[in-house]
Amino acid sequence: MCRWMAWHGQPVLIHELLFDSPHAIVDQSLHSRMGAETTNGDGFGLGWYGVGEGPAVYHSIRPAWSDVNLRELAAHIESPLFLTHIRAAIGSPVQQTNCHPFRHGRWLFVHNGYVGDFHDLRRDLMLALDPEHFAAVQGSTDTEVVFRLALTHGLEDDPLAAMARTIGHIEESARRLGRTPMVQGTFGISDGESLWAVRYATEGTARTLYASADVEAVRKLYPDNERVAMLRDHDRLIVSEPFSDLPGVWEEIPQSSSVRVAADGVFEREDFRPLVPVG
Amino acid sequence: MCRWMAWHGQPVLIHELLFDSPHAIVDQSLHSRMGAETTNGDGFGLGWYGVGEGPAVYHSIRPAWSDVNLRELAAHIESPLFLTHIRAAIGSPVQQTNCHPFRHGRWLFVHNGYVGDFHDLRRDLMLALDPEHFAAVQGSTDTEVVFRLALTHGLEDDPLAAMARTIGHIEESARRLGRTPMVQGTFGISDGESLWAVRYATEGTARTLYASADVEAVRKLYPDNERVAMLRDHDRLIVSEPFSDLPGVWEEIPQSSSVRVAADGVFEREDFRPLVPVG
Amino acid sequence: MCRWMAWHGQPVLIHELLFDSPHAIVDQSLHSRMGAETTNGDGFGLGWYGVGEGPAVYHSIRPAWSDVNLRELAAHIESPLFLTHIRAAIGSPVQQTNCHPFRHGRWLFVHNGYVGDFHDLRRDLMLALDPEHFAAVQGSTDTEVVFRLALTHGLEDDPLAAMARTIGHIEESARRLGRTPMVQGTFGISDGESLWAVRYATEGTARTLYASADVEAVRKLYPDNERVAMLRDHDRLIVSEPFSDLPGVWEEIPQSSSVRVAADGVFEREDFRPLVPVG
Amino acid sequence: MCRWMAWHGQPVLIHELLFDSPHAIVDQSLHSRMGAETTNGDGFGLGWYGVGEGPAVYHSIRPAWSDVNLRELAAHIESPLFLTHIRAAIGSPVQQTNCHPFRHGRWLFVHNGYVGDFHDLRRDLMLALDPEHFAAVQGSTDTEVVFRLALTHGLEDDPLAAMARTIGHIEESARRLGRTPMVQGTFGISDGESLWAVRYATEGTARTLYASADVEAVRKLYPDNERVAMLRDHDRLIVSEPFSDLPGVWEEIPQSSSVRVAADGVFEREDFRPLVPVG
Repeated sequence: MCRWMAWHGQPVLIHELLFDSPHAIVDQSLHSRMGAETTNGDGFGLGWYGVGEGPAVYHSIRPAWSDVNLRELAAHIESPLFLTHIRAAIGSPVQQTNCHPFRHGRWLFVHNGYVGDFHDLRRDLMLALDPEHFAAVQGSTDTEVVFRLALTHGLEDDPLAAMARTIGHIEESARRLGRTPMVQGTFGISDGESLWAVRYATEGTARTLYASADVEAVRKLYPDNERVAMLRDHDRLIVSEPFSDLPGVWEEIPQSSSVRVAADGVFEREDFRPLVPVG
Repeated sequence: MCRWMAWHGQPVLIHELLFDSPHAIVDQSLHSRMGAETTNGDGFGLGWYGVGEGPAVYHSIRPAWSDVNLRELAAHIESPLFLTHIRAAIGSPVQQTNCHPFRHGRWLFVHNGYVGDFHDLRRDLMLALDPEHFAAVQGSTDTEVVFRLALTHGLEDDPLAAMARTIGHIEESARRLGRTPMVQGTFGISDGESLWAVRYATEGTARTLYASADVEAVRKLYPDNERVAMLRDHDRLIVSEPFSDLPGVWEEIPQSSSVRVAADGVFEREDFRPLVPVG
Repeated sequence: MCRWMAWHGQPVLIHELLFDSPHAIVDQSLHSRMGAETTNGDGFGLGWYGVGEGPAVYHSIRPAWSDVNLRELAAHIESPLFLTHIRAAIGSPVQQTNCHPFRHGRWLFVHNGYVGDFHDLRRDLMLALDPEHFAAVQGSTDTEVVFRLALTHGLEDDPLAAMARTIGHIEESARRLGRTPMVQGTFGISDGESLWAVRYATEGTARTLYASADVEAVRKLYPDNERVAMLRDHDRLIVSEPFSDLPGVWEEIPQSSSVRVAADGVFEREDFRPLVPVG
Repeated sequence: MCRWMAWHGQPVLIHELLFDSPHAIVDQSLHSRMGAETTNGDGFGLGWYGVGEGPAVYHSIRPAWSDVNLRELAAHIESPLFLTHIRAAIGSPVQQTNCHPFRHGRWLFVHNGYVGDFHDLRRDLMLALDPEHFAAVQGSTDTEVVFRLALTHGLEDDPLAAMARTIGHIEESARRLGRTPMVQGTFGISDGESLWAVRYATEGTARTLYASADVEAVRKLYPDNERVAMLRDHDRLIVSEPFSDLPGVWEEIPQSSSVRVAADGVFEREDFRPLVPVG
């Protein structure tokens, strides 16, 4: 199972959130072996906005915990908006072109979950891509195709509507091919100003997703906490699973819903439902 | 520009032909920087028949000259039929899934050359693949798609006929899209018993291809040469460029032709012409 | 914690023992996350005797479970004697020169465990190496230095005596530097004919080590088992932890003891005690 | 032969100097195949000062031209002082711990050249290291040992004096071991404020080294050149070989000399001579 995390707020050293927290996303990859989980050692990706034109991406096929370059970058890059993703490969090769975040122009995209029967749906879904987006597919993951399909469905204009159409499209494709539709998971999307996340599963329980609580509320709970004191209003984290143990800091994002962190930090929740394609 | 080499004959340590020869394929990657050639440091592949079920493949994204594992394998694997390929990446990522040889069942496939405007043709060509072969595409090279298209056109039954239909198909696709058709290069194919090679270019001069001369003739030329003395009748090498400097050992394979080394070692040449698809 | 495994017996496809068994060493790296163990995703090594001159080694910094090349090699290399090792890095970089087995001439060496305070002992221990062996050190692991020290102490003539002197030397070095002596673990050694293993800890419980039971006994226990039927007399496995669940197949090697599988398959156990260096 | 480059001046996107210039250091690795030079495809390193504590380092064992991550970083990191190095491995493995720059605290160190007979000198030179620096050696290059020896000789207090003592020490060690002393090459050193370079060879011609001319002079020569117009007073480049073809922009640094770019940009040249160790 993959893990991802996104930060939207004051510029911080990426290191602060990747490594410094008690149960930060890199340590999650090791401790996610508790129980029966697959380990998250199949690659790591980091996408950040800051210096330079558009978002930067760093992809590594080394496990995050042993990637020395990752520690270096994280300790020397500051960003007000970044996404990280640790991969557990389900049926596709471990290579840089299969690492998240995927990028198109100023957009970044991460996913934790899967598209059921993707091997059988892949051809139909790729046929539905705009030629520009078909040509841009470099890897073999389901996520990359979902991203390209969402772009085809207008992600750049309205990400949440595009995701609704995309998931509806995939479920419909499955039905037409006689398969059980299944799109599962959480999606993280950004354009460098806003940050969106969707939590959805056709059936059953979707992968988990949490948002940090309003900073004001967190300050009240932990008036003496050093780290909390450094938070500014509108700082926001979206995470697959909480990475600190302070009660009250994390709020679960319900299934079939989406959230949006606006450029000014305003935080909104909405219901999310796929749109069945017409015709 | 890529380089490839194939051996068909007595079982030899792969090392003998990869490293030991004065200008063997690994050294070719370094010395191919003479002049204005791009270096061949974008990955290496080895496919061999021998122990175990079907062909084995080893793909590395490290340059061949610095890949310690490759030297180890080559020194400890014996095979009567193997293909090696050094890659110079033209427009696709350096990753293991983009390394040659490509494999399907007992078939191996290498290529030195390119498909013109592949970026624009890719979608149409992938649509033409049998669903089984579409699903099997893991990388982003033109060669992998050519291979899968050839399989769709019956490579497993008749490789040369399939290549003729495949190249004709690609040229026709280009014309339909308003592009100048261009399929260039040399192809190496094997099923573990025979070895085929094709040299072709829609226009201009195709990448070079050479076959070793009949062993009998080589023995007459070099009666005192140690290495030559070890050759057996029907030992055959097919190479992008010669890797020893002995005159008379290498015969150029003409453009628009194919060769076949049969299971029993018999060596045949034929003309090669693409088949324009009907309808 | 690392894991290692050695086979001494009839030639088998390495794949049979790496991947095929229910809880083979590669799967061990994933399932070793149960409880509080560190994962074994910091590199993999394979050393085998067979075709070609001396032992071959394959080292990979990719986790074993996602290394496609490893699966390929394992399925196409047959060997009567090989060692595999999965690494969990404790304080040294993940790089090929830090992977086991280490090799010198026809000797291979693996280790699961550690040398306490190695960072502080390293200089003194390296000073004690024969110049030839000092020069040969390429990585930064404790194991490589232990191996080179054992070679300095005559491993090529008598591996068990050399290990006794080596461990005694390391413990004495620690005492001289005012540290608590600690050499911990299991060692696997081979020259291509015999296979030795040592289990020892200065204090506390050493890493586990098991040997497969005599084939005759295993046959009596499991007369109908397909895999057991394929075993020949004198086939022997030495493993860090058992990888099948058949009771009676595995016998624990006691702490402070060594075993030896002779060229003819004869299996011997002995006590093992470090030799304190004189002067 | 390795190549290195250092920038000291206004904050620039690393990309500007790595990739954008007509013959930038990354393209140098490809075009350095002209003639009989070995290619520089054995690893790349980047060390930069800027955001975060101390210098950051990025090391890659992929050839620079195919390292996608490198392009990303370079396009999104701004720095007023950075060093880059492309490696051609001479006798040591291609691994991240063998990439330059080497780092200690706030110090970075690169080298183009070699220590003659290093394999034989290595033990003596490592014995001469302060225990702290012995313990810090992670790789197997001559450069890393030279760096650690220079630190032992007080590099942190006076880099040029330390280099003089270090080179004298190495030459003396060679003589004592009956070898021909040979220390060859160019060294780049920084503490994040100043930038030093040394060009020296015991015998023969040292690797080349150039500094950009004073900005004022360059402006006079090229009043209409866009890139030149962006330069500020005191911007300075130190390079192994020039990477633009504008005459008058590059001044060769003579052999047996050192240069220093001070924190305020002042540029000084001095003679450089090794100090023979006393006793």
